[in-house]
Amino acid sequence: MTNPRRRPPDSKRERRDLGQQVEGRRAVRELLVAGRRRVHDLWLATDADDAPVVAEIVALAEAAGVRIRRVPTDQIDRRARTGAPQGVVAFAAPVPQADLDSLLADPRAFLVALDGVTDPQNLGAVMRSAEIAGATGIVLPTHRAVGLTPAVAKAAAGALEYLPVAFVSGVPGALDRARRAGVWCAGLDADGNQSLYDLTVADAPLVLVLGAEGRGLSRLARARCDVVASIPMHGHIASLNVSAAAAIACTEIARRRAG
Amino acid sequence: MTNPRRRPPDSKRERRDLGQQVEGRRAVRELLVAGRRRVHDLWLATDADDAPVVAEIVALAEAAGVRIRRVPTDQIDRRARTGAPQGVVAFAAPVPQADLDSLLADPRAFLVALDGVTDPQNLGAVMRSAEIAGATGIVLPTHRAVGLTPAVAKAAAGALEYLPVAFVSGVPGALDRARRAGVWCAGLDADGNQSLYDLTVADAPLVLVLGAEGRGLSRLARARCDVVASIPMHGHIASLNVSAAAAIACTEIARRRAG
Repeated sequence: MTNPRRRPPDSKRERRDLGQQVEGRRAVRELLVAGRRRVHDLWLATDADDAPVVAEIVALAEAAGVRIRRVPTDQIDRRARTGAPQGVVAFAAPVPQADLDSLLADPRAFLVALDGVTDPQNLGAVMRSAEIAGATGIVLPTHRAVGLTPAVAKAAAGALEYLPVAFVSGVPGALDRARRAGVWCAGLDADGNQSLYDLTVADAPLVLVLGAEGRGLSRLARARCDVVASIPMHGHIASLNVSAAAAIACTEIARRRAG
Repeated sequence: MTNPRRRPPDSKRERRDLGQQVEGRRAVRELLVAGRRRVHDLWLATDADDAPVVAEIVALAEAAGVRIRRVPTDQIDRRARTGAPQGVVAFAAPVPQADLDSLLADPRAFLVALDGVTDPQNLGAVMRSAEIAGATGIVLPTHRAVGLTPAVAKAAAGALEYLPVAFVSGVPGALDRARRAGVWCAGLDADGNQSLYDLTVADAPLVLVLGAEGRGLSRLARARCDVVASIPMHGHIASLNVSAAAAIACTEIARRRAG
């Protein structure tokens, strides 16, 4: 829902975000459960309630030797970069970056490439659904897209800790590399020429390509797709939110692979 | 992502919201295209860009005899109740309320009941996905849930104009009425005892019941479900966002009904 024209002035800083600041109980819990990256510091509100997830966060942090700082809620809210940190903010080492060619070499490759998604809620939500569907990685452009900001980490609800992320200079070039590696490229767009349910490549090594909110797949990305699929629509309104489309497509691919 | 404890102090006003204030280009466009309710007033930013959707909104409003007020962007932003009105706010008659028993009497009934969803983004997103999947109505509790606020209308991207909405005093009671009317009640929950793909009732008259973010289905709602289905998970993180789960389940039900 973020208007791209309203990005905060520190968009350069945002672009360097690699998940170093994690806010919200679910995301911080997963950061600690996964234990894949060092957590420097954990701020917990002095008046945090006694929800089981708070006790779990404290126990996990203590077991990992992470320093817990009890700070007033207003101090957490000032430091937070999302609207609702839920009384917990963690500061961690950056998310490790994956190498695209290694991801493409996986015979079970199931990658999701996002071509110009600028809304952090949508990026986070896509990562969450992709991880749950068993995707083996996500491909994000370095430029003209959102970084792994606190808002992304929160919406991803822990997927940042598990889903390998490859940054590329451009999605069309990444799709060229995928095709050379023998990996199918399937676009998803409201005007795709084939139903998602007829996708014959769902259980082959695959990159699922999703376009920007509103505009859909770019011409350059679309030209590199072996097939462009669409989700059948039965109502009056014309297009799904990109994170809903991603959830549906990733889950359908998972179903076909499991079946 | 809204923290329910952070609801604005005007939550009483919010509860009476029935879509009277619609913000954002896509939602306002659909309000005018649908033409189901009177639009009193349309505010358009004096410096709105010349995107095709803006020209379309102007043409639709003129054709319907809706007064367009050109106002400075900062005035729109002050009046707006979402973070990004995109230079357009419409003031309209309330969304008409549907009668639950009439919705249940439809032999093709495909209703979605939300038991305690408090995040307006999620409610709007569920409505959008449900409308696209051909749902015949949505059932919302009057209390302990969000109304049809501007944030809901914006996230619904026009679904408010097409998807019948029945408000009920409680979801468990509504499910009792559904069962008496011979309509199946299928819950969706991460710990459901049957895969969504094995749901045998998908093409019968059906209410799909979704629980609150985080907590899932309430005990009272669950007890009234004929079956509780789950979406198979293949990753590390344990639960889908409620709007992603709704998109997946509604689309699967649509697929089964179309097949």
